[in-house]
Amino acid sequence: MQIGMIGLGRMGGNMAERLRRGGHEVVGYDANPEVSDVASLKALVEALAAPRVVWVMVPAGEPTRLTLEELGQLMSAGDIVIDGGNSHYVDDRVHAEQLGGKGVGFVDVGVSGGVWGLQNGYALMAGGETEHIQRLMPIFETLKPEGPDGFVHAGDVGAGHFAKMVHNGIEYGMMQAFAEGYELLRASDAVKDVPGIFSSWRTGTVIRSWLLDLMVNALNEDNDLSGIRGVAQDSGEGRWTVQAAVDHAVPLPVITAALFARFASRQDDSPAMKVVAALRNQFGGHAITS
Amino acid sequence: MQIGMIGLGRMGGNMAERLRRGGHEVVGYDANPEVSDVASLKALVEALAAPRVVWVMVPAGEPTRLTLEELGQLMSAGDIVIDGGNSHYVDDRVHAEQLGGKGVGFVDVGVSGGVWGLQNGYALMAGGETEHIQRLMPIFETLKPEGPDGFVHAGDVGAGHFAKMVHNGIEYGMMQAFAEGYELLRASDAVKDVPGIFSSWRTGTVIRSWLLDLMVNALNEDNDLSGIRGVAQDSGEGRWTVQAAVDHAVPLPVITAALFARFASRQDDSPAMKVVAALRNQFGGHAITS
Amino acid sequence: MQIGMIGLGRMGGNMAERLRRGGHEVVGYDANPEVSDVASLKALVEALAAPRVVWVMVPAGEPTRLTLEELGQLMSAGDIVIDGGNSHYVDDRVHAEQLGGKGVGFVDVGVSGGVWGLQNGYALMAGGETEHIQRLMPIFETLKPEGPDGFVHAGDVGAGHFAKMVHNGIEYGMMQAFAEGYELLRASDAVKDVPGIFSSWRTGTVIRSWLLDLMVNALNEDNDLSGIRGVAQDSGEGRWTVQAAVDHAVPLPVITAALFARFASRQDDSPAMKVVAALRNQFGGHAITS
Amino acid sequence: MQIGMIGLGRMGGNMAERLRRGGHEVVGYDANPEVSDVASLKALVEALAAPRVVWVMVPAGEPTRLTLEELGQLMSAGDIVIDGGNSHYVDDRVHAEQLGGKGVGFVDVGVSGGVWGLQNGYALMAGGETEHIQRLMPIFETLKPEGPDGFVHAGDVGAGHFAKMVHNGIEYGMMQAFAEGYELLRASDAVKDVPGIFSSWRTGTVIRSWLLDLMVNALNEDNDLSGIRGVAQDSGEGRWTVQAAVDHAVPLPVITAALFARFASRQDDSPAMKVVAALRNQFGGHAITS
Repeated sequence: MQIGMIGLGRMGGNMAERLRRGGHEVVGYDANPEVSDVASLKALVEALAAPRVVWVMVPAGEPTRLTLEELGQLMSAGDIVIDGGNSHYVDDRVHAEQLGGKGVGFVDVGVSGGVWGLQNGYALMAGGETEHIQRLMPIFETLKPEGPDGFVHAGDVGAGHFAKMVHNGIEYGMMQAFAEGYELLRASDAVKDVPGIFSSWRTGTVIRSWLLDLMVNALNEDNDLSGIRGVAQDSGEGRWTVQAAVDHAVPLPVITAALFARFASRQDDSPAMKVVAALRNQFGGHAITS
Repeated sequence: MQIGMIGLGRMGGNMAERLRRGGHEVVGYDANPEVSDVASLKALVEALAAPRVVWVMVPAGEPTRLTLEELGQLMSAGDIVIDGGNSHYVDDRVHAEQLGGKGVGFVDVGVSGGVWGLQNGYALMAGGETEHIQRLMPIFETLKPEGPDGFVHAGDVGAGHFAKMVHNGIEYGMMQAFAEGYELLRASDAVKDVPGIFSSWRTGTVIRSWLLDLMVNALNEDNDLSGIRGVAQDSGEGRWTVQAAVDHAVPLPVITAALFARFASRQDDSPAMKVVAALRNQFGGHAITS
Repeated sequence: MQIGMIGLGRMGGNMAERLRRGGHEVVGYDANPEVSDVASLKALVEALAAPRVVWVMVPAGEPTRLTLEELGQLMSAGDIVIDGGNSHYVDDRVHAEQLGGKGVGFVDVGVSGGVWGLQNGYALMAGGETEHIQRLMPIFETLKPEGPDGFVHAGDVGAGHFAKMVHNGIEYGMMQAFAEGYELLRASDAVKDVPGIFSSWRTGTVIRSWLLDLMVNALNEDNDLSGIRGVAQDSGEGRWTVQAAVDHAVPLPVITAALFARFASRQDDSPAMKVVAALRNQFGGHAITS
Repeated sequence: MQIGMIGLGRMGGNMAERLRRGGHEVVGYDANPEVSDVASLKALVEALAAPRVVWVMVPAGEPTRLTLEELGQLMSAGDIVIDGGNSHYVDDRVHAEQLGGKGVGFVDVGVSGGVWGLQNGYALMAGGETEHIQRLMPIFETLKPEGPDGFVHAGDVGAGHFAKMVHNGIEYGMMQAFAEGYELLRASDAVKDVPGIFSSWRTGTVIRSWLLDLMVNALNEDNDLSGIRGVAQDSGEGRWTVQAAVDHAVPLPVITAALFARFASRQDDSPAMKVVAALRNQFGGHAITS
């Protein structure tokens, strides 16, 4: 089917390519004229036959908000807009209402796959009305990986990004679990072959997983990770997961600990631990360093 | 090659079977005469040709200690004893020294595989001297899963059980990560198809893993887990992991949080939270329930 | 000086009383006509001489927002409005801007003291412009406890509620620390006199504190807290503290753990731990309860 | 009464002094002949009239073990030995049994007070038989602070050190709570006077405490703690608290998080966070630093 793709960066560009390979007609728009098929959003909308389908794949936050706002003015009743970016799920309802006021449908899709997606497909978690989802199924079928899995209609508007957010929260916890295990192995005098241990776990164990495979790759490239500094960034989704937990009164000790470990990894000196050192000095005369 | 197997329960029995299928000669001993090939440990040792290899697969702690002690009296210089049970790594050195005093070699092996091991093989993490490990390789090759992975000579005596312990610690963290994600999804009003979300993650995502597959199985059997009470036991290895972390001054926030979540799950009423409720009542007049 | 007090509940009523005892002229307004000095907000504003000072002490959220909105229409340039409720610090800037558009000053004050405040004074943390704070000092001097402490001009608008929020976050952590210590003491077979231990700590120790005193009171009333269920509510401020931490990328493991412990205490059955039990059953055949 | 004091360092020396001021006859022994009243342990025991009381105040672990062993050979039935050092509670039973075999009583005492103890008294938590405790009460009365609190007979042998250990665990949690609050305040743009906020909390708030007073002292000395590096050591007692929690299956999220924060504060680079950075690079191409 025909679809407009807005945002032709690493993710959007590859998704457009996968859709074309799957036989769909993709009209792409990007702020960069070198990769764009049309000169403007307006031109994009005009190039599509009604009822239109437009997939927005631009950075979350202000860029997505502005794009959806402009689309709201350009599109018509019966059209559908998909937000496939890493948007915060709480924004989805706002966007759905704004577009819905003009009869334009809104579907949010959490997309996983990263650099491997073009080849292997993108896992898709969609939120929105069943009618909209059904119209979009040919698109989803092409983008998703082969096999029975890789796509879900997760629920109402917002549920797609919520599910993707939770996926990333789980990812934080799993990565930190491997990370802690690695550190403990390194701390043992008896253990001599840490990379070998990780490799050995790839078959027959409870923790075998894609992350374990990646861990083995990383250790093959750099046996003791000496070329990597222990500093980890975090994306919005880890933070949103913890905030959603607080909003819903759900205890998330593991995922939150994983997020906090990243925060701490980026500090040269910890204000909190200055306090602990200062207090120990106050009551016990314990030495402090400066 | 020839090997004695002590302990023919679910794990030991299946391992003996896998070894026999692999062409080894296994003499099995178990306290239960119905499954035992010989009448006593002494008879087992006498049935084996020197230099002997004996695999001990009995419950960790006292049963293992007593078995190793008795073997120390029965076996001869040049023999090798393997402790394949879930022993605490700190016990391994003690046992190695005791047996080493008589010239008997000691190798500790952490074994993963559970109920799937007979068919798929057992992941093995071994600790001990290289010379001993090399003599045992035909055994390990048969027990381990096919392919390049599933076995590692992790390091010195104790390293095998240490590696297995860390494996289980990572397992705790990963399971809790999935568990927390599940609970957060359930707390969302917008999310309608939680089992479908988990299934969708099986391909194309960062968190695809055997535990995710098991999670999907569990949700297929009981869509909302209503037949399961939220109470989880813990084995020794989770506790040992945290204690090893404390001993080595390694921060393990995620694995420890996972262990503590299990402790808390087994409490009908929390003494700690009684205190919090009591204090809130004291300073703010907040209501308490009884 | 003259002040209008809006909201004459337990907090506002006692604060008005303390101000009157301190020689100030208080005109009080409350939705409940039995305790109100005037019939309406309009009447309150008219009863005060310009430039006016009005202290808003109503529930946080919608009630505060509506009150401030109405005051914005009634008050004049040069007046000052104080929000002394438990408002979220992010709302303060919005309110300050709205009122500032009409030349009305805004000061946010975090108030601590609870049921003991009338007699002992209220600890006050204020945010706003120095000029406004200085005009209000006679009020603050009367409300605060005697002595050099109990009041701070914490910073710009929002800083007062931010400081109060952090106070409560610290309170969460401290309470949980006592709570965990209590539970561990109860778990020891050797320990016989838990209340006696807490009492003994009141002098000469590092942890002596008002919370410890309250803990001793609570144990005097109910030796083993058997009359109290281990269920603890949480106020908004604990949640805001964690969300502020996430927003500012500050790791708060202790305060967050304390908040999550309260969430968990309110669950009859934990969805997360159902998952852990289900997974243990899947891979190890471990029993599950229902 | 007469007492022997072994170990005349900062703690033991001051305690001997406080006992003398209280009218007791103290015979002190120390490895350092300049401060020792007698030349050897043997001489100490001979200098005391039977039934003797000896207070051991030497470093925990090997020094205490060796001292108790030697005392066991020197002392007689009816004598009492007190271990007032920071011993691990699990050692107490061993020592009590060894000494008990010769009819010598054993009492363990957790001592709090640090550099302030000579003047203000030492909080004492005692474990042992009631008969022994009663004989020692004149000593305890002199050492403890004035007032009704500051001493407890906590329970059986080991309960004194257990109670002191838990005290320190609570201390860890409280210090970390203040530390986290400090860091969050520092992260706010609106907050301008962090030391002032801490001072303001000293009266009228829920968190007023000796640690808060010390915090104010520390901020008076170094307004932003810029002279202190965020690195905190830990004593054995924090670790033992967590290990006791694991042994007793008691969840201690806050105290454990406080301990782990100290571990992490001492790392120049985190092996665990290297893994997180490496994995993010593997699956998402996220940049790594070296």
